[in-house]
Amino acid sequence: VTAGGGSSATADVAYGIDIGGTKVLGVALGSAGQVLVEARVSTPTGPAHGDAVGREVARAVVDVVAQLDAAPEVAAAQPGSPGLAGAPPIGIGVPGMVDREGGLRFSPNLPQAHGVDWHVLLSEQMPRRRFLIENDANLAALAEHRLGAGRGFDHVLMVTLGTGIGGALIVDGRLRVGGHGYAGEIGHMVVDPAGPPCPCGRRGCWERYASGGGLGLLAREAAMAGRLPAVVALTGGDPESVRGEDVTAAALAGDGDARRVVEQVGWWVGFGLANLACVLDPQRIVLGGGLLAAGELWLDAARAAYAELVEGGPTREPVDIVPAAMGERAGAVGAAVAARQGGLW
Amino acid sequence: VTAGGGSSATADVAYGIDIGGTKVLGVALGSAGQVLVEARVSTPTGPAHGDAVGREVARAVVDVVAQLDAAPEVAAAQPGSPGLAGAPPIGIGVPGMVDREGGLRFSPNLPQAHGVDWHVLLSEQMPRRRFLIENDANLAALAEHRLGAGRGFDHVLMVTLGTGIGGALIVDGRLRVGGHGYAGEIGHMVVDPAGPPCPCGRRGCWERYASGGGLGLLAREAAMAGRLPAVVALTGGDPESVRGEDVTAAALAGDGDARRVVEQVGWWVGFGLANLACVLDPQRIVLGGGLLAAGELWLDAARAAYAELVEGGPTREPVDIVPAAMGERAGAVGAAVAARQGGLW
Repeated sequence: VTAGGGSSATADVAYGIDIGGTKVLGVALGSAGQVLVEARVSTPTGPAHGDAVGREVARAVVDVVAQLDAAPEVAAAQPGSPGLAGAPPIGIGVPGMVDREGGLRFSPNLPQAHGVDWHVLLSEQMPRRRFLIENDANLAALAEHRLGAGRGFDHVLMVTLGTGIGGALIVDGRLRVGGHGYAGEIGHMVVDPAGPPCPCGRRGCWERYASGGGLGLLAREAAMAGRLPAVVALTGGDPESVRGEDVTAAALAGDGDARRVVEQVGWWVGFGLANLACVLDPQRIVLGGGLLAAGELWLDAARAAYAELVEGGPTREPVDIVPAAMGERAGAVGAAVAARQGGLW
Repeated sequence: VTAGGGSSATADVAYGIDIGGTKVLGVALGSAGQVLVEARVSTPTGPAHGDAVGREVARAVVDVVAQLDAAPEVAAAQPGSPGLAGAPPIGIGVPGMVDREGGLRFSPNLPQAHGVDWHVLLSEQMPRRRFLIENDANLAALAEHRLGAGRGFDHVLMVTLGTGIGGALIVDGRLRVGGHGYAGEIGHMVVDPAGPPCPCGRRGCWERYASGGGLGLLAREAAMAGRLPAVVALTGGDPESVRGEDVTAAALAGDGDARRVVEQVGWWVGFGLANLACVLDPQRIVLGGGLLAAGELWLDAARAAYAELVEGGPTREPVDIVPAAMGERAGAVGAAVAARQGGLW
């Protein structure tokens, strides 16, 4: 999207960076689509807002880029010292509503960054690099459709379950971004108007239940209702301080109470997927994001809820609900793919 | 989809028939897209199931076709007596999940017809006519996108609010039917898993709230809670016998209680549209179906709920929510368009 030097050398390596609610994850992608090297830093958090925090996040991006630039794997894949003019193009995935010019309109899970112009901020710090800014889930879908679990399907629903929920739609063989670039913002379908408040300003959004954040919320609800005694005891006795990670760890260790809470999240995942299948009729559903790390605990519950809730049930063709082949790297890999080809298509 | 005689004469007139939950509506469409004549009969209802009721509905279709065949407007538009070989092709819209071969997989609002093979039944009764079977909302979208309120927009969400809710998606300039033909079955997004039972077998589907059927349900709920005293008195004193039409009539006559119930339906319409906008990011939303007859009572409430609930609110481009230009005829007109061109595209 942004200009910059460029030569055929840039086709060898491309960088992809996924700015998440908890971490900034970068990859350098080789010309055959292989990940050469990975780098990550924590996403800066704090009370700062707008450009101030935008600058902090931009510095985290600079940090990740510097790590990739310094990696011997990158140098080895770029024959002949390319210098800045031949520096790898950088694709950047951000959560939230990204318009067709790469501007971030609204980002509930990166609220500090509302109104931030990533192009300007990043160009300030890396004036001679080329950037492409896109919605993180769109990039994950691009990667999985091109190289991963969605390969060979013309209708794929990509869902990233992280701090919040991202989504992207492959329809008739191509990524579709909607009339203004915002399609796939599926985490903010309201599933209960009286539900818990969401950072987006409304209540009861799907991502309040079916994401990493949702797991924490359901866990604290269960803890306060006395349904997680062992977990509460382990975390110091205060039900309000129980986090999603605590419940996942306890469930993996065999705690039946914890397992039921994680399965409840799985039910909510399946619930939303069934609704989306009514709208979109995908051939395959690919799930990515951090919540997949504990997928063994809830994927079956999600599949069961989907089968129970989707319109037509057994009269319609079954749809596989599968984890992203690239796991949590899907967004970063897709960012690199988009950077190399100069856009989503 | 089905074979049959054919000649260039058939291009002059095409028939479109929309099988709804309450009526079978047919139009004869002239070569310039104008409605030459309309015919309608009530949809047969009763205890019969499967092929038996399928035959009754097929006879209603035959009845509508006979009315169109006999219309002087059709004869005038078909110069030179065409005979059967040149008889107008017939497009037929049915509610529910229609697969890519025109088979009806699942149809909550025409439950008697589950498993019915419309091609076989209609061919039995009109052996030498050509038929095309499609989902009713897809056909309405085709008509409105080509000739009506969605003209000129590449991203249109079509929603038909009748006995139930139908939906269809124009994405990047083309009707999209999904991986198996079922896309746009938006009425069966579950909005409250503990809500009222739906004919589809689940609970709390959107169409339990935001359709003609939903209006009746919300009206009886209000009546039983004592919130519709005047309407209940007018309809004989039994709150359980209040119908949606009673409330609409009272609201149009100025009854404030009735008005609030109709506006509640409008709120639910806007609620679902906001969810769908998060998923699809349309540029325009076109509403059709019988509920639009009372649109003046609830459209503003729907628009207000949409604006309040859609992610990003004022930070995103506004989207007009407009009535179908062809009103309740949209499905039938689209059926005729599809019949003439031999398919949806």
